[in-house]
Amino acid sequence: MGINLTNFLSSRSKKRKMIDFQDLDHLDGLSISAVSANLYQNNRDDLVMFYFRKGANFASVYTQSKIVSENIKWNLNHKSKKIFSLLVNTRNANAFTGEQGYKSLENIAELLSKKLSDKQKEDEDYPEKIKKNNVIFGCTGTIGEKFPEQKIKNKITDLIKNIKYTQNKYIWIKAALGIMTTDTLPKLAMEECKIGNTSIKIYGIAKGSGMIKPNMATTLGYIFTDADISNEILKKLLKKNIENTFNAISCDGDTSTNDMITIFSTGTVSHRKITSISDLKIKDFDQSLNNVLLSLAKRVVSDGEGASKFITINVKGCATDEDAKKIAFSIADSPLVKTAMAGEDPNWGRIIMAIGKSQATINLDKLSIKFGELNIVHKGKFYSHYDENETTSYMKNKNIEISIDVGSGNKYFTAYTMDLTKKYIEINADYRS
Amino acid sequence: MGINLTNFLSSRSKKRKMIDFQDLDHLDGLSISAVSANLYQNNRDDLVMFYFRKGANFASVYTQSKIVSENIKWNLNHKSKKIFSLLVNTRNANAFTGEQGYKSLENIAELLSKKLSDKQKEDEDYPEKIKKNNVIFGCTGTIGEKFPEQKIKNKITDLIKNIKYTQNKYIWIKAALGIMTTDTLPKLAMEECKIGNTSIKIYGIAKGSGMIKPNMATTLGYIFTDADISNEILKKLLKKNIENTFNAISCDGDTSTNDMITIFSTGTVSHRKITSISDLKIKDFDQSLNNVLLSLAKRVVSDGEGASKFITINVKGCATDEDAKKIAFSIADSPLVKTAMAGEDPNWGRIIMAIGKSQATINLDKLSIKFGELNIVHKGKFYSHYDENETTSYMKNKNIEISIDVGSGNKYFTAYTMDLTKKYIEINADYRS
Repeated sequence: MGINLTNFLSSRSKKRKMIDFQDLDHLDGLSISAVSANLYQNNRDDLVMFYFRKGANFASVYTQSKIVSENIKWNLNHKSKKIFSLLVNTRNANAFTGEQGYKSLENIAELLSKKLSDKQKEDEDYPEKIKKNNVIFGCTGTIGEKFPEQKIKNKITDLIKNIKYTQNKYIWIKAALGIMTTDTLPKLAMEECKIGNTSIKIYGIAKGSGMIKPNMATTLGYIFTDADISNEILKKLLKKNIENTFNAISCDGDTSTNDMITIFSTGTVSHRKITSISDLKIKDFDQSLNNVLLSLAKRVVSDGEGASKFITINVKGCATDEDAKKIAFSIADSPLVKTAMAGEDPNWGRIIMAIGKSQATINLDKLSIKFGELNIVHKGKFYSHYDENETTSYMKNKNIEISIDVGSGNKYFTAYTMDLTKKYIEINADYRS
Repeated sequence: MGINLTNFLSSRSKKRKMIDFQDLDHLDGLSISAVSANLYQNNRDDLVMFYFRKGANFASVYTQSKIVSENIKWNLNHKSKKIFSLLVNTRNANAFTGEQGYKSLENIAELLSKKLSDKQKEDEDYPEKIKKNNVIFGCTGTIGEKFPEQKIKNKITDLIKNIKYTQNKYIWIKAALGIMTTDTLPKLAMEECKIGNTSIKIYGIAKGSGMIKPNMATTLGYIFTDADISNEILKKLLKKNIENTFNAISCDGDTSTNDMITIFSTGTVSHRKITSISDLKIKDFDQSLNNVLLSLAKRVVSDGEGASKFITINVKGCATDEDAKKIAFSIADSPLVKTAMAGEDPNWGRIIMAIGKSQATINLDKLSIKFGELNIVHKGKFYSHYDENETTSYMKNKNIEISIDVGSGNKYFTAYTMDLTKKYIEINADYRS
């Protein structure tokens, strides 16, 4: 399972240095520890601690669901200016766990912050005492099960013992593996960029849609940079860049109680100060952040449950941004479109159906549809030189591109999804058998 | 395939006479002819004419899609006061066929109305000349294929030759079969009711989600009554009763370009005149119409592609009607909920997820969830006497009822859907192989 992403990566800008897994290395100001807290029964890593020796600025975006997990509530309630630790567990979503779930996080945050303060003293590191509200949490897994507070507390000493002040690719991959549920592949992405003349790293890991026992597909994404950027500017950059990356993907249209994307800035590299997101100095960083987020988001989709094809839906010529988004997601979320893709069937009638039901304003006489470079509908008419054989052969590709030109304006949006296969049903229906 | 509906029908009010297929008989003022126009290659009936000897009052509701088929455009453009014929074809949706598709309908309507006028003269039936705008069309099938005008015109003579002025159950079933695409069962429902002291019939047929070569699942529903009700009141009754029937079902969240529900009133029975839908005399008719529509709508869902279970989602305690609907459809459309049902897995975490993502206002402390009569979540807490074995055993039923009490008001909505099985993927992805 999983689709090869080489072509996404090679489509990147050439002037920017391409870093792949083998180039992963140290990001100053961050330590990573991963252990098994026996949350799963097979001894796999399921508890990952990110520790910021000197604290980190940060910003988060969370699930749009009206029912949120206890860790999201904790994170929203504890808005300290600096974060010293992000603790991520899998197997238990800490959602619908009520007081027990919330209180558990408080107890863990208290213990962890105390032990980290001790560690700081020992290393003569930093004079300030780490408090419980310097800790935030990521959780993913089953909903409604008692949160395993004690199992996690039992491993705090080990997590701290494992702290190293340098990273190599192995610890990054260990972290990406440690936050997975039933993802089939770890998801990492990274870029180097410049602020002024200073080289800056942006590394990211994510987990996506996949579950065996758990109840849903939570997306977690964590981005780390050694740049020195304020919380306020991080927030603006994250919000701006999430729109066409993590908010442009759809696996099955369902939304988790636990979705969370956070960016941390360790500030260990000195560079010219950034005071606004319109500052020209931030342009390269901004683009690289978008690349990292998009690369992670694509990896989440391509590892979507049962996916055999990665589908890019380009919509342009819309009257409004909203219309472009509506059409793109109407196609991306349509089970009929997604099953046609699984069947390698150039069933463009279903694309028409999805455009129609999106309720976006369209000018039927100007509508054009392409599969890859092949014209299907051209300015409102079935393309006169349409070649069924050619189109059928195109559908056999692992990466399918559907392009819609609505002919009503100049707004556009690109969404990413995967096909809907029997494997999806197997994973989500039959896992008990 | 298909789920036995006996239990839906038996749940009906006892005071109202229950009529099942075997009781189907004559509905005065209507003739039905069905023939094969060779639109399919296997000689099955694919062209059905409903002929109203004395004309019929009527009202329609159509697809909400922004892209509509040529026959829907025709029907919207030709608002005559009386309809003499409804002609329904399968195999070709007449959608995205442009001028050719529209002009074909015009040519067919001209020929059909002329031949029907001749028939009327011959039978010394009715002095008024039938015109092309007294004909409306229902189409379902493939999108974007040239509309088979000639094949249909070739069969007009046969359709008219087959006109009989009485019906029996066989012709009703023939009609219901003749409008099917890949439905596995014909869909019929009927009631008798009273207006004042007069007995009135309401008969209906429908087709639903299913396709082989075609591109999507169109819903067509046609209701016939011998009552004498004006177009204006029919419109109000249909709009009111569609809300909790055909607008309460969801197979896969996709919407056809061709959806059409029409009610025809032949006016052949004399009864006290109805001047308003709040008239007490219409109450029994109103309820019976709702029963017929709901029965047909449930039959469409239960014959939904690949369905192995029929799922009723009751939502109550909402602040607004809109919230109740949002929650019900968020659950009904969720692939994760639907696959869990297919897997007979009481995965209530996915119900929580679907409620959360619906964006409806909820009071988590008051939220209750039941599967059948079994408490799962009670007033915001996982039910203390929850019995996994009992719940798992409940999930083996063919009819599953999920009840949500949101605890935020007194508004409610019930939606109907089916599970999402591998068979759905097979039908929609693999039919070429």
